[in-house]
Amino acid sequence: MRRFVLLAHEAPLDGDFSLDDLPGAGRLDLLCRCVADALLTSHGVREDSEVWLVVRNQLTIRVDGGRVRSLSPDERAVAGLLRKALGEADRAVGAEAVEASPGVEVAKGGLEAALDDAVGTVVWLHEDGDDIEGFDPGGSATFVLSDHREFTGAEAEVLEARADATLSLGPTALQADQAVAVVHNRLDRLGR
Amino acid sequence: MRRFVLLAHEAPLDGDFSLDDLPGAGRLDLLCRCVADALLTSHGVREDSEVWLVVRNQLTIRVDGGRVRSLSPDERAVAGLLRKALGEADRAVGAEAVEASPGVEVAKGGLEAALDDAVGTVVWLHEDGDDIEGFDPGGSATFVLSDHREFTGAEAEVLEARADATLSLGPTALQADQAVAVVHNRLDRLGR
Repeated sequence: MRRFVLLAHEAPLDGDFSLDDLPGAGRLDLLCRCVADALLTSHGVREDSEVWLVVRNQLTIRVDGGRVRSLSPDERAVAGLLRKALGEADRAVGAEAVEASPGVEVAKGGLEAALDDAVGTVVWLHEDGDDIEGFDPGGSATFVLSDHREFTGAEAEVLEARADATLSLGPTALQADQAVAVVHNRLDRLGR
Repeated sequence: MRRFVLLAHEAPLDGDFSLDDLPGAGRLDLLCRCVADALLTSHGVREDSEVWLVVRNQLTIRVDGGRVRSLSPDERAVAGLLRKALGEADRAVGAEAVEASPGVEVAKGGLEAALDDAVGTVVWLHEDGDDIEGFDPGGSATFVLSDHREFTGAEAEVLEARADATLSLGPTALQADQAVAVVHNRLDRLGR
């Protein structure tokens, strides 16, 4: 199983935003592209993949490729799904997740809670990491990456302590969605 | 130089479409993501890259990373740029290109005209091609790929005759924008 944990530093904590201005809604455009790239292939769904959006270290929206229904790759469609989840965030209490739509859950909790639940090898994707060439998780893996912002000092501290590896994808720093596509391709080629 | 020639089979031939329904406008959402992935990195522009959208084998919109101004990665912003170019398509006559905005040109002509103008090694990206591992263009390259549709018989015939290589990116068929991100990463790693 492949899971992408994306740290969303400025995304909204509720569903009160316009689908006509996703960049203005804390760069939801980027987050939507990450969801699509994490879960969709040319004409199919990556059923064994998940994406977790950690919003402002307070809420986590989890989208499960194995259960999500009729996911379209365009930003606006994904944003509609996320808006519905954010609109139900109030119902999430304690560690209990709320299912906003099939395969889409929202729960309280930030990066540390996401790492408590991580599957397989935990990889911190960071441009200063070791080159990913030769890396093989051997099985499931959880990849942690940041949106358009740098990791905060607190996030870096947590990840330094808890990641099994810190890896870079190459000499050019990529947008988060591009990084997701590249990671998937590497694992596809490894047959993981 | 890296150029991506994307065959857009259903995109509009004029600017008469709504930014609120890009999938309904011949899958412009996908084309917009391709433009962004072809030209943008984490916080910069790939100045030595271009993307050419061949629309219905009739028109070609060319976006030059070295000259385009204030390109945002979200679909809606890119679609606005393309809509402006399509709105000026009528002014393109013969082989003469019209500049619709800085770095964005529109010209008459389809796949064959795009290949007549190709730079460096011409690569046909196709899931039945040889594996890209070990491929090094040595210099400039032009990558030809299709949108959400298969290559037509006529396109395949032209590409069989004129491509220097037919390459596949791996065992999983990717969306066109994902393919662009993977190709860039491979060339970044080769230092091309």
